[in-house]
Amino acid sequence: MTRISIIGLGLIGGSIGLALKQGGGSDPELVGFDADASVMAAAKGAGAVDRTVTGLDEAVAGAELVIVAVPPISVEGVFHAIAPRLAEGAVVTDTASTKGQVLRWAERHLPASVAFVGGHPMAGKSDQGIGNADATLFHGRPYVLVPADAASETAVSAVVGLVERVGGDPLFIGAMEHDQLVGAVSHLPLVASTALFTLLRRSAGWNDFARVAGPAYRDLTRLAAGDPQMSVGICATNSNNLRAWIDRYIDELQRLRDLLEGSPEVLLEEFETAQRDRADFVRGPPARVAASEPIERPTIASSLGTLLLGGRLYERLRGLASVSGRTSAGRTASSDR
Amino acid sequence: MTRISIIGLGLIGGSIGLALKQGGGSDPELVGFDADASVMAAAKGAGAVDRTVTGLDEAVAGAELVIVAVPPISVEGVFHAIAPRLAEGAVVTDTASTKGQVLRWAERHLPASVAFVGGHPMAGKSDQGIGNADATLFHGRPYVLVPADAASETAVSAVVGLVERVGGDPLFIGAMEHDQLVGAVSHLPLVASTALFTLLRRSAGWNDFARVAGPAYRDLTRLAAGDPQMSVGICATNSNNLRAWIDRYIDELQRLRDLLEGSPEVLLEEFETAQRDRADFVRGPPARVAASEPIERPTIASSLGTLLLGGRLYERLRGLASVSGRTSAGRTASSDR
Repeated sequence: MTRISIIGLGLIGGSIGLALKQGGGSDPELVGFDADASVMAAAKGAGAVDRTVTGLDEAVAGAELVIVAVPPISVEGVFHAIAPRLAEGAVVTDTASTKGQVLRWAERHLPASVAFVGGHPMAGKSDQGIGNADATLFHGRPYVLVPADAASETAVSAVVGLVERVGGDPLFIGAMEHDQLVGAVSHLPLVASTALFTLLRRSAGWNDFARVAGPAYRDLTRLAAGDPQMSVGICATNSNNLRAWIDRYIDELQRLRDLLEGSPEVLLEEFETAQRDRADFVRGPPARVAASEPIERPTIASSLGTLLLGGRLYERLRGLASVSGRTSAGRTASSDR
Repeated sequence: MTRISIIGLGLIGGSIGLALKQGGGSDPELVGFDADASVMAAAKGAGAVDRTVTGLDEAVAGAELVIVAVPPISVEGVFHAIAPRLAEGAVVTDTASTKGQVLRWAERHLPASVAFVGGHPMAGKSDQGIGNADATLFHGRPYVLVPADAASETAVSAVVGLVERVGGDPLFIGAMEHDQLVGAVSHLPLVASTALFTLLRRSAGWNDFARVAGPAYRDLTRLAAGDPQMSVGICATNSNNLRAWIDRYIDELQRLRDLLEGSPEVLLEEFETAQRDRADFVRGPPARVAASEPIERPTIASSLGTLLLGGRLYERLRGLASVSGRTSAGRTASSDR
């Protein structure tokens, strides 16, 4: 039997567990651990893991695949703690939203006898925690994979199998490129949203603001409601990129501010272009939509699968995916609307 | 029979019509006009107005209450056009999201024989247009009223009656105070959201950003999808306040940016405070929640109603509200969650 260990049973870890267990069956066996016992109980109750354990040592013992799904700021500590107990040949992956720092931690702490493949599912929702875990959370969403230099193709194919099994689209990019991307589309929005909230909250007129604020202010400030540990972890591990994006955002705000003093025609053109471009964006990115020929292109994962049929874990996970009736072509066709 | 004219049958004008007609009946008679004939047909089909007309002249002829629900930038033109045809003693109100400029236009264009009471329902949604009109759009939401200096108490009570009839909470504040408030809670979010979209859209990496962007970026940029005419109108009529708020927002972004370079403990405290305060905000503003004694406080509108029983239109509108079984106490108790 294949044993997979999930460390951290929040929204992401719990959703991975639910997705892996969706087809039913006892193989792979999912062993779960969370620092919070009540979270472990909830994960077990929800069927996101087969059994829970009381410590990290026990969690990784005998596991062929270890998924570290803790907040970014806790990743290093977990790597350090599990390193001595990892089975030889085990594959370790994570789900943190920054990758450069995580790869450096993996290199520093994990033994040479295991392979590390960094991961980041580009999925989530505002309501965190195991109570919001969802087996379909990753469906059709990009799932970034950043293998360590030393990771074997077999190890990579095992994690690709995991990603396909949970319904994600494997996306191989470099750690630096990833961190710049998420700095722009994920971490900058966090800061922009938080600043919009704290600006008014700290001002003298807050009681009046709170009374009249409508859906626009509420929606725009929702990221300020995120898990503070997660937010600090993001800021701490992607600080350089994030600060650069804040600077560029400030420049853009100043550009729009200057337009307010200019002609209404220019401003109208600006808003019209933004409206049109955002509608295009919501319809789906051009790179993922076939213009006129709806040809099923093979995914990176399928290519790897063909190439590396020797990857036992990949085969096992692919087999499970087939059992549950989903194909990668079907997923590729779905946009992330 | 009372005749009410609604000029502009988009989301707001249409929702006012639906709310007024919710109790059924033919009194008041709602006469609707929109520059777009297909919008008029849709409004008539949806039951938001009793009949439509082909021009502004006909729209206001014999109307006791005229509701100008057009984008801010079109308000002046409508005032100018309807001025010669308004019935003596008519009450005119608007729904534009800026009030200082609108009051100046009313003073410049409307005849002394009519009363102007500026209005701004603090309600809305991202999907605009008559197709999204909703009789409950204003329920429990503040509805700002800014009477012109010359407006009689009878005229004010008529508009208060309208607000109560559509389910809003009348809120009397000055035009300058209003424009500062909406500059903060509504117009700044518009610019912040648009800038977040245009920054990435204009950058070389857009195709990659669009591919990996998740719910955070999508939600935070949704105001960029708003009606460009509306956005320009907002910017043009509240430019000074908006620019001042953009400056303060930039300062706040720089404050958070500086915190990124400091200790994680301070940053954590910042995010924890923001998370707690935003949860309080979403639970409902303190001013509108009774701490321990759920006493039904009289609304400003009810007080006015008692004070000004002579206001025929107010009585008529209040009567309709009673018929439909809703009470202002019930509305007051509901929070804007």
